[in-house]
Amino acid sequence: MGERPVKAAILVIGDEILSGRTQDVNIGQIAQFLAPLGITLGEARVVSDDREAIVEAVRALSARWDYVFTTGGIGPTHDDITADAVAAAFNRPIDVREDARAILVERYGVSGVELTPARLRMARIPDDASLIANPVTGAPGFQIENVFVLAGVPKICRGMLEDVAHRLEGGAVTHTVSVRIENVREGDLAERLGQIAQDHPDCSIGSYPWFEELPGGGLKRGVELVARGTDEAELEEVDALLRALRR
Amino acid sequence: MGERPVKAAILVIGDEILSGRTQDVNIGQIAQFLAPLGITLGEARVVSDDREAIVEAVRALSARWDYVFTTGGIGPTHDDITADAVAAAFNRPIDVREDARAILVERYGVSGVELTPARLRMARIPDDASLIANPVTGAPGFQIENVFVLAGVPKICRGMLEDVAHRLEGGAVTHTVSVRIENVREGDLAERLGQIAQDHPDCSIGSYPWFEELPGGGLKRGVELVARGTDEAELEEVDALLRALRR
Repeated sequence: MGERPVKAAILVIGDEILSGRTQDVNIGQIAQFLAPLGITLGEARVVSDDREAIVEAVRALSARWDYVFTTGGIGPTHDDITADAVAAAFNRPIDVREDARAILVERYGVSGVELTPARLRMARIPDDASLIANPVTGAPGFQIENVFVLAGVPKICRGMLEDVAHRLEGGAVTHTVSVRIENVREGDLAERLGQIAQDHPDCSIGSYPWFEELPGGGLKRGVELVARGTDEAELEEVDALLRALRR
Repeated sequence: MGERPVKAAILVIGDEILSGRTQDVNIGQIAQFLAPLGITLGEARVVSDDREAIVEAVRALSARWDYVFTTGGIGPTHDDITADAVAAAFNRPIDVREDARAILVERYGVSGVELTPARLRMARIPDDASLIANPVTGAPGFQIENVFVLAGVPKICRGMLEDVAHRLEGGAVTHTVSVRIENVREGDLAERLGQIAQDHPDCSIGSYPWFEELPGGGLKRGVELVARGTDEAELEEVDALLRALRR
């Protein structure tokens, strides 16, 4: 593990997220998977099932961040265009690849399902990409350079990450402390909090107001303070200062 | 209502989303709010509480899309830098503005809370921006050109949208039909589905596999097909074709 910050981006691909029909959970899931590896998310984007949009986003994110994770658009139907778009982003040829086809043949042979031309779309893998195992349904993802192409179904996406972790070079691990303060408004804390943040520039300190409805119809309010940093000793000091804000 | 497609983008601002600590719900919430107005989301981005990242994203999205909605980063604490960053993106001066201060004075006067310098940060509004009413906590959002700056707390964000709707020029309203098919795999439908999509290029047809765990430990699977379009007659035809896939 080095000490330099390692940053990743997520590209969520799918009209269903942009229409509001489906709630994305992969951004949070991948962020939580990366944190213990010392990798933090620097950016996330959601684009539609549109070839040009995917190509442009893959190129922009791949150039800017250490790693990029795409989710969605690698199934067998006409709207699954991620693999072809990612290949285009790297100017790589793409076709049905024998190693990927072999995985599908074995998987579908076992389950007695016919390997139709549509299903063979899932074996379309760019030249020189390395496969990412899919423990749930078999159909693999793939890695090209610093881009990891994963499924959109959250359980499958999570399963694929198991075959991604060992390929990632992590950075310094970020630790987190959080302090919950009840019956306070953000504005009550803002000045003292700003001073703590200024005195500890290596910690990232966030302030998040919350509201809870009480059974009797009333409202309870408070603030959750979250500090993140790589230096545990400094973080402990910040933790104590944040707790002192309760008084 | 015109017939041209009107497209919007959302810029979610906040380390808490990128860390995976908080699950964003504003993308879906705003998308669902815009749909009946005939406005669809073309893109969403999540960036950290970083001035340069916000400035760059606001400029890029504002130039590309009809409307941009930002969420988060307009509270009273040191990490709330959205207003200043949006002002910078449009090269506008920003300071405490009297109309915004008057709203806070009235609101905090009523509730007996002190209007501290930190709280006054919430009255920092770029020159010439128009205020967006906040029915929940008072502190206003604002509009500059085609960018609407909203709160990140979902209930407050939703409340602010009420003062946004009348400013939006909508497009053709998109209708949706969805057909749920049980005991089928995506690959079983892919070829017939691809043909339907090809025959109806003005409809957007998406295919979304689902899995449900049964009480006995088994697994039920199926596919949800969703078609969207502006032509109701064509959409009815597609709906019938999708239903026929059940047989």
